[in-house]
Parts: sequence; C-alpha cells; structure tokens
Amino acid sequence: MPAFEPRDPEFERKVRDSFARQPVMHLIGATLTRVEPGRVEIELPFRADLTQQHGYVHAGVVGTIADSAGGYAAYSLMPAGASVLSVEYRVHLLAPAAGERFVAAGQVVRAGRTLTVCELRVEAVKGGVRSACAYGTQTLICLPASPEGPAPG
Amino acid sequence: MPAFEPRDPEFERKVRDSFARQPVMHLIGATLTRVEPGRVEIELPFRADLTQQHGYVHAGVVGTIADSAGGYAAYSLMPAGASVLSVEYRVHLLAPAAGERFVAAGQVVRAGRTLTVCELRVEAVKGGVRSACAYGTQTLICLPASPEGPAPG
Amino acid sequence: MPAFEPRDPEFERKVRDSFARQPVMHLIGATLTRVEPGRVEIELPFRADLTQQHGYVHAGVVGTIADSAGGYAAYSLMPAGASVLSVEYRVHLLAPAAGERFVAAGQVVRAGRTLTVCELRVEAVKGGVRSACAYGTQTLICLPASPEGPAPG
Amino acid sequence: MPAFEPRDPEFERKVRDSFARQPVMHLIGATLTRVEPGRVEIELPFRADLTQQHGYVHAGVVGTIADSAGGYAAYSLMPAGASVLSVEYRVHLLAPAAGERFVAAGQVVRAGRTLTVCELRVEAVKGGVRSACAYGTQTLICLPASPEGPAPG
Repeated sequence: MPAFEPRDPEFERKVRDSFARQPVMHLIGATLTRVEPGRVEIELPFRADLTQQHGYVHAGVVGTIADSAGGYAAYSLMPAGASVLSVEYRVHLLAPAAGERFVAAGQVVRAGRTLTVCELRVEAVKGGVRSACAYGTQTLICLPASPEGPAPG
Repeated sequence: MPAFEPRDPEFERKVRDSFARQPVMHLIGATLTRVEPGRVEIELPFRADLTQQHGYVHAGVVGTIADSAGGYAAYSLMPAGASVLSVEYRVHLLAPAAGERFVAAGQVVRAGRTLTVCELRVEAVKGGVRSACAYGTQTLICLPASPEGPAPG
Repeated sequence: MPAFEPRDPEFERKVRDSFARQPVMHLIGATLTRVEPGRVEIELPFRADLTQQHGYVHAGVVGTIADSAGGYAAYSLMPAGASVLSVEYRVHLLAPAAGERFVAAGQVVRAGRTLTVCELRVEAVKGGVRSACAYGTQTLICLPASPEGPAPG
Repeated sequence: MPAFEPRDPEFERKVRDSFARQPVMHLIGATLTRVEPGRVEIELPFRADLTQQHGYVHAGVVGTIADSAGGYAAYSLMPAGASVLSVEYRVHLLAPAAGERFVAAGQVVRAGRTLTVCELRVEAVKGGVRSACAYGTQTLICLPASPEGPAPG
C-alpha cells in the first residue's frame, strides 16, 4: 500500500472526536484503536447480543465495524473542515465470525479529491490466533466545507 | 421479479423462528414484518443509539437489516433442513438514513441449488412519505442438511 | 423505478454520438438500441470470438455491455457539457451467457448532482425466449464542464 | 497474502491450456504471463480499438482481464477434473486506463471447497512507470467433476 501524507495535521484528534460521536459504536461495544494516515482499526469484543441464529457475530455487525474503519481511514486524509460519507461498501464473509474479539482495518487504496476507495479487512481473534473473517471494498465521498460539530459531552 | 414456489411448505414459520434466534435484531429493535416466498421485509424504528456522527442511522445498521432481509428471502426458498449463510453483500447508500422508521426488503433475483442472488432495498419513512435510502445486492449459499436448532425460549 | 426528467433536451443525440465514439463497441459488435431518460439498452449478437473456455460469452464482455448501458443511462440525465465516468461496477453472473443475442439494460436508480447509481441487467435471447443472464449495480460520476469532442467521422 | 499449496500438480499447464481456449483473449490481444499457485497475471497492450469515448481502454475491457486473472488464480488451486465459473466480480476504476500496456493480477484471498474469493488489481504501465488503474474483488465457484475439453488446435 502507498504511504499517505495527511492534509490535516490534526487528523488523529479529528478522527477520534468523530468516532466518539457515533452512538452505535457504544451500543455494540466497539473501540477505536489505531489511527494512522490512511489506515484505521476498530476492535469489537464478542457479545452474545451481537449474534445471528448460529451464534456467530451477525454479518451486518461485521460490516458495521468494517464500514466505520474504512470511513475513518478516508477521513484521516481529508482536509480540515470536510466531512465524509460512505457511498457504497461491500463485504465478503470469508468465515463465520467466531472468536473473542474482532479487528476491522480500513486501508485507503486511492484518495482522490472527491472520492476515496478503501480496502476493508476484518480478522477474528480466537485463543490468540488471528484469522481472516471478512474482506471488502468501499467508496467514500468527501464533502468539503461541511465540518462536523464539536465533540459531544 | 419472477414468482417463486417454496420448496418447504413451512417456509414462513421457519423464517420467523430463525429471525427470533437473531439476538442482534432485538438489540437494534428490528422486527420481521412480511414473509413471502422469495421476499422478506424487516422494519427498524429510528433510535438515537443507532446513529453515526451526523445523527443518521449508521450505514452498517442499514446494511444489517438489508443483509437479514435478503438472507431470509433466500432462506424462504430453501428446502427443509437446510441453512443459509451470506457469502457477500453490498449496499449503495442513496441518501442519509433519516426518518422515523426504515423498511428493508430482500427480494430473490435467482435461486440456484447452491447459490442465491438477492436484491436489497431500504426505504426511509418520514412523515408518512417513503423514499429510497439504500440499494444493493447479495449472494447467499445454501448449506443442505444443516438445520438450525429449535426456536429459543 | 421513478420517471426521470432529462436536464439536456438533446440527451438522445448526445448519448448516440458518444456511443459512436466507443471503438470497443464496434470491435465486439454491440449496438445501441433504446435511449430513454435514465434508461439505455445495448444489444450484442453472439459471436464465437467473444467466448471463454466453455463456449459462453465471456463474463467480462457481459460486464462491458452492462457497464456501457449503465454509463449511458446515467449520461442521459446529466446536464449539457458534462461527461460521465464509471466509478465502480459489479455484476452477478446468474447463468452462463448462452444465446443468439444479449440485451444489456442500464437503469438509473438515483441521479445525484455528482454521483449516479444504476441497476444493470443482461438478458440472453435464445430461440425467442429471454432469460436473465447477469445482474448488477454501478456508481458513476458526473464531470461538469468537460464536454466530449465532436462525433467521429 | 497466504501461500497456497496447489491440489493439482499440473496446475500451470491446466491454466495455460484453458487460457488458450478463451477466444476473447485473442480478440483483445491479452496474454497470460505469470501463473503461480493462487496468483495469475494477464497482460494487455494498449490498442485503439479497445477504447471508450475519451480514448482510454474501456472499463469493461479492464474488467475482462481482471475477471480472467482472478478466475485462473482460483482455478490454479482447484483439484484436477474441476472447472471454474465467476459468480460475481466488481471493479473500482481508480484512474482512467491510459498507458502502453496493462497488467491484471488475480490473487486468491480465500480458497474454499466450493467458493473462492479473489482480489483483483490492474496496473497501467506508461513510460516504464506502473500505476494503479483498477481494484476489485470476485467470487468464484468450483464445479467438481466437470473437466474442460482438450486444448484446441
């Protein structure tokens, strides 16, 4: 993957503030771990109330952390004062989402002025062993001059 | 869309039982409304704890109800004793998810012996007016002879 | 699908001129048939030199006519002086592409100022019977003030 | 990416024979270059008759070589006597396809018994410099006990 130069020196604080404004991340128990220019990771511990009918974490929850990881990876490279929206995303479910926790990584593949393309990967961690769980891609749009509000609380 | 003939006469009960076994649907407050051969609808009332940083329902939650709607649309056409898994899904976010409630519809486009393809649509309902919110497609796989367990409770 | 109002009264001529400037359509033998606001159809007769290893038309050729049909469906709704580019497209191959000819239809699902989303369908015609062959979706971008050149020839 | 062990020791010959049976590759002038377990590359020199209305290679042609590269990457890991079909593929067009030649790489991400997921990348080579042109993913299905015919000619 190419190395990216952030256009906003405050990129990490901006991403962390925005993540803190996503109530759904609190609902599911996800936390923001790594924030680098063009790469963001989100972790989600297993919880029984996140599962589907077979006891695995629901594919939609896997997609939720993947979509946020990619969205913030894109956002980390956007200029100050812009905001980010997902245009579309897709995930391949490579294996049932079983494990103690899940790590979603969003990695920018191309950062254009208007559109950004990300690669999405989710790994399951089970007994200390990481294995691929989901894989996908995403398109995001940069909305210039539409800053988010102040951090909540 | 073509009309589909269910191979399992108990298709509706089977789908409703399985939906009841998805804890994540309870967590987000989604309910199963329509179940027809090859078509399933899921409704989700707006809740503030489902939102992202702009106050709209998170794209991942939109994807979650779309994925389940498509999964059960596919499942409605599968033979008794089989189970269903999402292989991949993708959603285009057509408009920010704003409204009092959201209706996700999964519609089978092609039901093969092994693979099923669905169309996914999510509409937002705001002041009685419905508008397109998300649109996508999905691939599902039929696992024969792997029945789900009994309904919970 | 919603009815769309073209912003350029010359939309049909514009689309037909642009199609005539796509040399690859001549190479594969595709022709532009229907042009309506937000909907375009392209036809492709079977030819043995378009096939893959099993004698069916190659999935990439199916994708090529689907991508062009969607691109021109989007273009038909864009203002005069704009041009169109595919951002991404995806196709599900529902059945092997066998038949005397193939009809690709691109239908706009949402036409935004910057981005357009299309539904793509390809049908095979065999002995007068049409059947679904491929199905997909596509995202396109409108480049304002970047008109195409004059029609060739 | 993980290293893959081929189940068919004749994997390279099998892939090269099958590629030779794809007439459309001859039509567009594509050649098979690298064949490794789980990874295949296809090259396409620029030709004016492959272009769209702006003079770039058509997105559908880019998708065609990407789809074949991924298909053969999957096929390289399948057991003897099986054949491969694309279930779906999608490509993000990262930049207009301009250059002297294009290199499509298909890389297996997960090889299951029935389904395989590939990553697709297409690079443009211009004045000796390679740059990303397209990026996508693909799902393929293994049809056991359905061998292809003998090599043509």
